[in-house]
Amino acid sequence: MTARPDAFSPDVAVSVLSRLRERAPRVHCITNAVAQSFTANVLLALGAIPSMTIAPEEVATFAASADALLVNLGTLDERRRQAIPAALEAARAAGKPIVLDPVFVNRSPVRCAYADQLLSDPPTLLRANREEVESLFPGEEPARAARTGGFTLAMTGSEDLICGANATLRLANGHPLLSRVTATGCAGGAVMAAFLSIEPDPVIASAVALSVFNIAGEIAAERARGPGSLVPELLDALYGVDETALKSRLKFVDLNLGGS
Amino acid sequence: MTARPDAFSPDVAVSVLSRLRERAPRVHCITNAVAQSFTANVLLALGAIPSMTIAPEEVATFAASADALLVNLGTLDERRRQAIPAALEAARAAGKPIVLDPVFVNRSPVRCAYADQLLSDPPTLLRANREEVESLFPGEEPARAARTGGFTLAMTGSEDLICGANATLRLANGHPLLSRVTATGCAGGAVMAAFLSIEPDPVIASAVALSVFNIAGEIAAERARGPGSLVPELLDALYGVDETALKSRLKFVDLNLGGS
Amino acid sequence: MTARPDAFSPDVAVSVLSRLRERAPRVHCITNAVAQSFTANVLLALGAIPSMTIAPEEVATFAASADALLVNLGTLDERRRQAIPAALEAARAAGKPIVLDPVFVNRSPVRCAYADQLLSDPPTLLRANREEVESLFPGEEPARAARTGGFTLAMTGSEDLICGANATLRLANGHPLLSRVTATGCAGGAVMAAFLSIEPDPVIASAVALSVFNIAGEIAAERARGPGSLVPELLDALYGVDETALKSRLKFVDLNLGGS
Repeated sequence: MTARPDAFSPDVAVSVLSRLRERAPRVHCITNAVAQSFTANVLLALGAIPSMTIAPEEVATFAASADALLVNLGTLDERRRQAIPAALEAARAAGKPIVLDPVFVNRSPVRCAYADQLLSDPPTLLRANREEVESLFPGEEPARAARTGGFTLAMTGSEDLICGANATLRLANGHPLLSRVTATGCAGGAVMAAFLSIEPDPVIASAVALSVFNIAGEIAAERARGPGSLVPELLDALYGVDETALKSRLKFVDLNLGGS
Repeated sequence: MTARPDAFSPDVAVSVLSRLRERAPRVHCITNAVAQSFTANVLLALGAIPSMTIAPEEVATFAASADALLVNLGTLDERRRQAIPAALEAARAAGKPIVLDPVFVNRSPVRCAYADQLLSDPPTLLRANREEVESLFPGEEPARAARTGGFTLAMTGSEDLICGANATLRLANGHPLLSRVTATGCAGGAVMAAFLSIEPDPVIASAVALSVFNIAGEIAAERARGPGSLVPELLDALYGVDETALKSRLKFVDLNLGGS
Repeated sequence: MTARPDAFSPDVAVSVLSRLRERAPRVHCITNAVAQSFTANVLLALGAIPSMTIAPEEVATFAASADALLVNLGTLDERRRQAIPAALEAARAAGKPIVLDPVFVNRSPVRCAYADQLLSDPPTLLRANREEVESLFPGEEPARAARTGGFTLAMTGSEDLICGANATLRLANGHPLLSRVTATGCAGGAVMAAFLSIEPDPVIASAVALSVFNIAGEIAAERARGPGSLVPELLDALYGVDETALKSRLKFVDLNLGGS
């Protein structure tokens, strides 16, 4: 079902980004209290429209009318636990792509069990770092976990690995200073949701999302004097990132040409 | 009761802003999770003092001792639904001005019904964009909705329209880049609440609030490279906006000289 | 038990900061909704690792595995009231230092009573401004309140006073523009928690914390054009503050050489 991984290239990234800016998709975000404001600003800078309510009586309406749903498990509390199933059900019924970000499952067994349960009805995309993937699928190889689980996996780190049904990509953009700002990973999950609403192949969509976000991060880090100035620079770079930047900076490797 | 609309001028804006900075009014804000931090920083940059608790056992104390109350319906959840009536009752009993901002009522019928119910005991000021006004008063002319409803309406957009009991003003300051930053509208509602505590005429107070905020936005947008740098620039501009900026930039039209 | 106050000097501050950056301690923060994101960014810029959940089923796990706990009473609601005792118990059982920041107890009798109750099992450090100290210990001299209460007190203001079991220090760094940014005080409490996990003497730890934070604030204020640009400048300065800055700027007075 997924496109061939050689369908990913700088030209594809440019074209998908351009479609996103034209369509201005709505992304409903159930995300943690720390990330809400920054995530909203990242989506707006990119050209998408955020909404953030977690009220149980409203969240289904917002999730169904949005173009994609992000479920981030940071600061997972009773209110978020009530909102998540309602939002997931509404997004699924409406055929909208879903990103699950199981923040800190490696630090909280109760959260890990909750994420496990959510994965039984797989999201379009699971975004997680290596520690989180290892907590969710102990001893399992990431690409196999994704294939078995029925979702695309974007495993983020100093290099990013994307594992789809029959394609694996490795991406190498980004900058270490990004880890000195809270919620950059969480906001990156929202960016993936935005691109999933534009590009139907989840491997391509998440590769474009990671590339655009991390290239903006590189541009920002070159201009910043520290993690404080990185924030406005990152948002400015997301707003301004263009064909020239994508074509000159994009770094990726196809690991597996999916069945070829 | 309201002053004549010709009472609004750059000189009036300068004088009301100067009084606000002297008095440093307290504004209690029941506002959405995404807007809380930015709204607090906007009020502090302007010269006002924010408080933000929504705990039911405390909110009445904070609302009664503040100089104005903002009720913003973004991320409207059970906790906010509990806090709002208590805060409104305390602010009314203490004779404090109240701003209602019915965020996204056009996207949530349940929230629209809630806002309708709040309007039955009218706030001093309703701040809303065109879509929100149309959801609350379908088919009704905004100025008539305000007169009938017993509140002043500040309808924001690329132009802002203020409708009081016997005066209508149109304001034309602002910059499109402001819409690429989350919570600028929400923070603008808090600025209106701050000015209502200084200037008793709600048409004048909201006109000064919108002018000061939007002129600061223009100055910021001229200095910013994108929506990221716009945020610090906007707060710096609110902190520094002065007589020269207000007099050289203020753009408004009196539409109706209220009964004259 | 506490070190002699003459143990505080620019050299000590340099050495303690250097140890913090090497160890990258984890600080679990139960803090108010307005401060969460900024506090996380302050800790990351400094070189510490924040976590922020207040979910009752997870907070004990996070608090026990962190190196220090911050309990900040801003926006004190039912969820935070549930999280606080669980987090305190877990941190105490694990022998971790605890900072209590009783925000706005002077404006809410119910919150003041709650803080009083928490103080019956004393935290390592109480961080409060003069009004908050006066509400908690009416008519009492701050140093005596700390000795009687069994905690170290950091009373912040234009000058900061630190009162330990047998030492009193006065610190004079900082800049008035810091008070025009929300949550600078709250984030400062998290910085104290981070340093308490590195330096066992709470007088020294809080003196280093206040000095580092306030010197970064001075550097930032010299570079900023207002409270907006102060935020990125402050985070950049916390990230970059070094031996030269600490040695040239640190201002403190030993008031009492504790029993000598």
